[in-house]
Amino acid sequence: MNRKLLLLRYNGAAYHGWQVQNNGITVQQTVQDALEQLFGVRPNLTGCSRTDSGVHARMFCCHFDAPISIPNEGIICGLNRFLPNDISVYGCSDVADDFHARYSVKSKTYEYHIYTDKFRDPFYCDRSYYYGKKLSLDKCELFCKNIIGTHDFSAFCSSGSSVSNNVRTIYSASVREAGPITIFSVTADGFLYNMVRILVGTMLAVSEGRIDPESIPNIIASKERSNAGNTAPPDGLFLHNVEY
Amino acid sequence: MNRKLLLLRYNGAAYHGWQVQNNGITVQQTVQDALEQLFGVRPNLTGCSRTDSGVHARMFCCHFDAPISIPNEGIICGLNRFLPNDISVYGCSDVADDFHARYSVKSKTYEYHIYTDKFRDPFYCDRSYYYGKKLSLDKCELFCKNIIGTHDFSAFCSSGSSVSNNVRTIYSASVREAGPITIFSVTADGFLYNMVRILVGTMLAVSEGRIDPESIPNIIASKERSNAGNTAPPDGLFLHNVEY
Repeated sequence: MNRKLLLLRYNGAAYHGWQVQNNGITVQQTVQDALEQLFGVRPNLTGCSRTDSGVHARMFCCHFDAPISIPNEGIICGLNRFLPNDISVYGCSDVADDFHARYSVKSKTYEYHIYTDKFRDPFYCDRSYYYGKKLSLDKCELFCKNIIGTHDFSAFCSSGSSVSNNVRTIYSASVREAGPITIFSVTADGFLYNMVRILVGTMLAVSEGRIDPESIPNIIASKERSNAGNTAPPDGLFLHNVEY
Repeated sequence: MNRKLLLLRYNGAAYHGWQVQNNGITVQQTVQDALEQLFGVRPNLTGCSRTDSGVHARMFCCHFDAPISIPNEGIICGLNRFLPNDISVYGCSDVADDFHARYSVKSKTYEYHIYTDKFRDPFYCDRSYYYGKKLSLDKCELFCKNIIGTHDFSAFCSSGSSVSNNVRTIYSASVREAGPITIFSVTADGFLYNMVRILVGTMLAVSEGRIDPESIPNIIASKERSNAGNTAPPDGLFLHNVEY
């Protein structure tokens, strides 16, 4: 075996998420198509996460077993030749045979980009959530402080998830302004289904005064999805970093 | 008369430039469609510049005579409702009846974004020229120094231009790095057909050592298009600022 770790970036606007499915083109299938063109056979490809439809990645990790030997630099250049412009490979390295892109993850960081100017900007429209007003940063910071730690995050998980254990550890959470974009950044050992988007929807409710930031511990403790905020749209979500 | 100045931003990737034409959708026609939906009649719309197919604008100015009275804020919001996501209006103001979006211009600034990292980035692919290597900034700065001033820029004008006087004044020209992008910025009282793209193509030839930066005054003096560099692709070009 010759296991390889691939590092990808993609603009997810045109894709039905990572995972292969029947009703739309996915990133996984597009990268597998490119691997098949390069290697002549279609390797299995395992991703670090199942990003949703429309979600982006500044760093996405996946592994496959190379059927023939091609230098890593050649794999990068070859795949980029076959991939569309909205997906690119920027790294390829050898990993141990028991390395697993999903199960070996130590932590992941997501960013959520909220567009806060009144008038939309065409250069941000496919890569941020158009919110159209400034956030109350003080309240958002209090929200961030209150989600850090090891908790059962069932209140922040969409129904339909098949996971039995909803305990996760958020190592850090913060919010900052970058021009017309306010960026929510969160690092955890793992995330539940739609967890980041529900955290963002709840943070927006906190910013608007509809949810008291001091009530977040109670919302977490309730384990009731209906106590948290809406699920924010996928457009602003980026898988930003993955640590092994 | 009730002359209005509109400020637009647009991502030009999907458009055949500004000016209405038969063989493709243009920005002018798209904005006129929105004006017609808002006002019920189709006003003439005069732009500050004829940007080429694929060229972008961070600031584009145009004027029209409003057939009925609508508050400026209402015009902005109304147009944005009818415009696609890749065009937005961010300003509307009253101007004198003799104001002309093109003839009243005092200076314009263009930026050209050159992507210099080895591996392409999906978040820059529709808004920069993929060059894939670093520029020699020292040489580029020398190039910039040598184009500033009042000159006949015929050597930097594509054939097919109908303009008789090719003398223009470049007030400033500079180059800077911003992450994976190197930005060429140039301000002048006006620009000839394809002038910025030919300046960029020539700067790249200078960076690669194919043209000596000290020979730029001779190239300008020759007035010969063939002595300058290639015409750089439109993808990296932004109309950045317009002064009246």
